[in-house]
Amino acid sequence: MKQGKTWIFQHKPSILSTGVIGGPFEKKSPYSSIFDACKDSLWMEQDSFEKANRILIEDAVDTVLSKSAVLAEDIDALLMGDLINQITPSSLAARTFSTPYLGLFSACATSMEGLALSAALVDGGYCDNVLTGASSHNAAVEKQFRYPTEYGGQKPPTAQWTVTGAGVALIGRESSQNKAIAHIEKATIGKVLDKGIKDPFNMGAAMAPAAADVIDRHFRQTNQSPEDFDLIVTGDLAWIGHSITEDLLKEKGWHFKEEQFLDCGKLMYLDDPAVQAGASGPACSAMMIYSHFLKELEKGSIKKILAVATGALLSPLTFQQGESIPCIAHAVELVCADNSSRHGRES
Amino acid sequence: MKQGKTWIFQHKPSILSTGVIGGPFEKKSPYSSIFDACKDSLWMEQDSFEKANRILIEDAVDTVLSKSAVLAEDIDALLMGDLINQITPSSLAARTFSTPYLGLFSACATSMEGLALSAALVDGGYCDNVLTGASSHNAAVEKQFRYPTEYGGQKPPTAQWTVTGAGVALIGRESSQNKAIAHIEKATIGKVLDKGIKDPFNMGAAMAPAAADVIDRHFRQTNQSPEDFDLIVTGDLAWIGHSITEDLLKEKGWHFKEEQFLDCGKLMYLDDPAVQAGASGPACSAMMIYSHFLKELEKGSIKKILAVATGALLSPLTFQQGESIPCIAHAVELVCADNSSRHGRES
Repeated sequence: MKQGKTWIFQHKPSILSTGVIGGPFEKKSPYSSIFDACKDSLWMEQDSFEKANRILIEDAVDTVLSKSAVLAEDIDALLMGDLINQITPSSLAARTFSTPYLGLFSACATSMEGLALSAALVDGGYCDNVLTGASSHNAAVEKQFRYPTEYGGQKPPTAQWTVTGAGVALIGRESSQNKAIAHIEKATIGKVLDKGIKDPFNMGAAMAPAAADVIDRHFRQTNQSPEDFDLIVTGDLAWIGHSITEDLLKEKGWHFKEEQFLDCGKLMYLDDPAVQAGASGPACSAMMIYSHFLKELEKGSIKKILAVATGALLSPLTFQQGESIPCIAHAVELVCADNSSRHGRES
Repeated sequence: MKQGKTWIFQHKPSILSTGVIGGPFEKKSPYSSIFDACKDSLWMEQDSFEKANRILIEDAVDTVLSKSAVLAEDIDALLMGDLINQITPSSLAARTFSTPYLGLFSACATSMEGLALSAALVDGGYCDNVLTGASSHNAAVEKQFRYPTEYGGQKPPTAQWTVTGAGVALIGRESSQNKAIAHIEKATIGKVLDKGIKDPFNMGAAMAPAAADVIDRHFRQTNQSPEDFDLIVTGDLAWIGHSITEDLLKEKGWHFKEEQFLDCGKLMYLDDPAVQAGASGPACSAMMIYSHFLKELEKGSIKKILAVATGALLSPLTFQQGESIPCIAHAVELVCADNSSRHGRES
């Protein structure tokens, strides 16, 4: 079903299990105790960082499956993406598992592109069990996108830090053997917006208009407002981008209560002075949403959340060719598993 | 609905309109008269080949819309991908249209990844109208993947030629205003296979096992065989890969009649001595399926076709790091619009 351009899932597609793996720096995150594991080395016994990125995905998938009653052969599709050229780590990981594979690219918004599509495939009856996730590796990504890291270039205070990690979720139908952690109720797919920012060290500001647009459209298309949600959580806008987004949403008439509008990028490395603006990378939203925020939904301490992953669809080519940064954000509405039919104005 | 791991579409999601744009070399194709337009220059008045790639997509989208009664604002999603790092041309084209965008990457199999997902989104009721397509630009792609083209390196007879072009289709429900060209009945999503081939000049051979696997699974999962289809058409296996695929399918017990098992890559530049092995690139299958083969389905000269796009999920990194080439193929079953309820064993 659809409402405006928002996808409405009527058959309670659910998150049944998750796997969240971090890197050595993420081990210092205040949330690391709820990640499934953190690697001690960026190399992970591989001879390249891209191959280490693959290991993060494979370990996250193994973790999801080990925590679920669903067998590997019963997975109908793997929907995945990352930031590396031709999403090589995701494709190499998909080679390891003998599972139908759909490669995705929404940059750091890939986690919610995958979650929205997976929910549609399960809700529509085309798949019983889908694995979806996103990953990034600091050393693989930053050498590709920002500066060759070997130069040791300094970063301005607007620059984000790319998370090393992977977050993967199993989407399916709840059963006696597979209890739902949360239900996926709705999804709004983002438009590519670009307000002319060309600074790769200020991606939060570049992504803010796309985030504000998809949140605004989600509210309007579903006849909801911030009051209908316990939390609205963006992906990797970090301090500067998140505050711009809040300002843009205020201009559109949406006001948040204190602690209601959060950002995974702000939370990931909370108070670590090494990270000036906050965290980024497709892994950032995937890891925080599939660990901390799902845990809160599972406990029932929050009932309903709008998860909004944000992505800068840039490539080194974008800059070489003088283009500004096209950005996108996708929003997925998650509800507490025992609460989906009672919460929200429209249901 | 699903049958094995094959997606079954029960509400006749349809191809309503298409746009196919080629480049200057594609103008010499025996099929060029049924393309919507061919560019005279690889540059297309842009200052880079990647930006020219974007123009191909934008022109194909404009063409689809101009041939349909559906308005741009009624498009619910744009599902698209290409071969350039971070699918930059697709993202830049998506910026031009104010449409929710889902970036895809299955390399040269992207056309059928997009068609399968679009059919599911329309069939499941999450979207009314979806645009999906794939594109490639010879000069942008070959400089990135094979050799820097400035070197003027010679190609062996197993090497394919990357098509310059874009093919885009509008997927929706048939109405009195929007007649269906064909219905989309089923889709089987491919697994990533890799038989150890490391030669980027022999991608047909690398992709053949993935193509044979998805065709075999589609037949078995839907209780069909080659006799149920007028044509089985692969994407860009070209002469060598296509013949290997036919051999692999024979080993699995599937035999084709003469002229029943075709390949877009073999047909695109038929008899052009400049192209030794055949054509490739995401545009190859998109252009041939969304022009020639749909035209035949529309005329009723063929009733049912299995369209199988094939992709090598390689990147320059794959080779630098000594990896062999992971490959994938996705299969979509298309039927003549007035025939969908009468044809095929299982319906």
